[in-house]
Amino acid sequence: MLFKQLFDQDTWTYTYLLADAETREAIIIDSVIEQVDRDLKLIDELGLKLIYALDTHVHADHVTGAGTLRERTGAQSGVAAVAGVSCVDQNLEHGQKLSFGSYELEVRSTPGHTSGCLTFVVQANGQTMAFTGDALLIRGCGRTDFQQGDSATLRNSVYSEIFSLPNNTVVYPAHDYRGHTTSTVGEEKAHNPRLGNNISEEKFVKIMDELNLAYPKRIDEALPANLACGLKIMEAGL
Amino acid sequence: MLFKQLFDQDTWTYTYLLADAETREAIIIDSVIEQVDRDLKLIDELGLKLIYALDTHVHADHVTGAGTLRERTGAQSGVAAVAGVSCVDQNLEHGQKLSFGSYELEVRSTPGHTSGCLTFVVQANGQTMAFTGDALLIRGCGRTDFQQGDSATLRNSVYSEIFSLPNNTVVYPAHDYRGHTTSTVGEEKAHNPRLGNNISEEKFVKIMDELNLAYPKRIDEALPANLACGLKIMEAGL
Repeated sequence: MLFKQLFDQDTWTYTYLLADAETREAIIIDSVIEQVDRDLKLIDELGLKLIYALDTHVHADHVTGAGTLRERTGAQSGVAAVAGVSCVDQNLEHGQKLSFGSYELEVRSTPGHTSGCLTFVVQANGQTMAFTGDALLIRGCGRTDFQQGDSATLRNSVYSEIFSLPNNTVVYPAHDYRGHTTSTVGEEKAHNPRLGNNISEEKFVKIMDELNLAYPKRIDEALPANLACGLKIMEAGL
Repeated sequence: MLFKQLFDQDTWTYTYLLADAETREAIIIDSVIEQVDRDLKLIDELGLKLIYALDTHVHADHVTGAGTLRERTGAQSGVAAVAGVSCVDQNLEHGQKLSFGSYELEVRSTPGHTSGCLTFVVQANGQTMAFTGDALLIRGCGRTDFQQGDSATLRNSVYSEIFSLPNNTVVYPAHDYRGHTTSTVGEEKAHNPRLGNNISEEKFVKIMDELNLAYPKRIDEALPANLACGLKIMEAGL
């Protein structure tokens, strides 16, 4: 399998490109609209055919590139069905599997940061990879105070759908703000200061309640744009 | 092997942590002084014993963390012998091999960006990894107009010591400014706009001569600090 982790410095977002090295069919996860030209250049250089442009959730901090990638490549866009993004091609459900070449991407429902958060699980080269979006970050997790977020739900999602994976599963989050690029399930179970060490629901909810985070600075722009697959922002000339 | 790629957002620098998963002996490559606490925390969480803190070259854009890491862990610092950094423990020479657990790091001399640039080559999990510093960047290369840089020398280094590796060798550079994290030798041979496609020495020298880059903004601070293993800047309270 071909695999690339890409970073958007302005929004600290990781985008992932996965492809079957034989068939060249590719999936992109959590693309950023400002990086679409970079990503398409890489896809072209590697001789890949993009078939899916997926988002782990409706992002509040950047605008997805999925709609633009669909327009420019014919790829199908996809996000959780419960997120209510009517313009996507794939309304993803827990347990659904998407094929790219000989590989499969498994959809797991991991709500809590938003009501529609997904984790994508891929097996490749004898390794399990988990694209956890904002549900599980490296030594952290997404906030739970917007977009139907719910701390108890997030804890349950992480424990039942991510921490249940093998300890050597590589965790690829949607963001990191300290320069980490990857983690593992075993590392997060042991060292995640919010979610690790079998923290109780009560303690986790208290931690999240006391975060007192600032209002997300791009939410008023990003949410409506992402509910329109990232296309409305283009039409408005932004 | 355990492997972590780490990023310093302020200087766009990649730091690499490699370790034998059995013996826990670890090497860090191109550490950044401002990130030493982050890196030591990770080393501690993973239960690693740092034995080498290496630099691919005397950096002009950030101060190395090697001297501080040596003080705080007992690791040996190392940089190219020709770089003339008298405070290091390892004056590295072309062909030298450093062991960490059952793995070996091979030192290759790849001058041109500076006169003392090294590429480190590691074989792990059936894969060749090349830590190319600023000699070969993703779709680019280091500038050649400072620190005894020489374009013809750089081209020769890349062709003889890096492009001679297998095409599927993963290239881990010291920097990227567009959000790419890795490349391969095959990709760079095909798509590097400066060094790819068997470019002639004459054409490459012309490309580099015409870059007209700005004066490196941290060079006056970073060079003297790095020639002192990153320790003088600490003494000065910076």
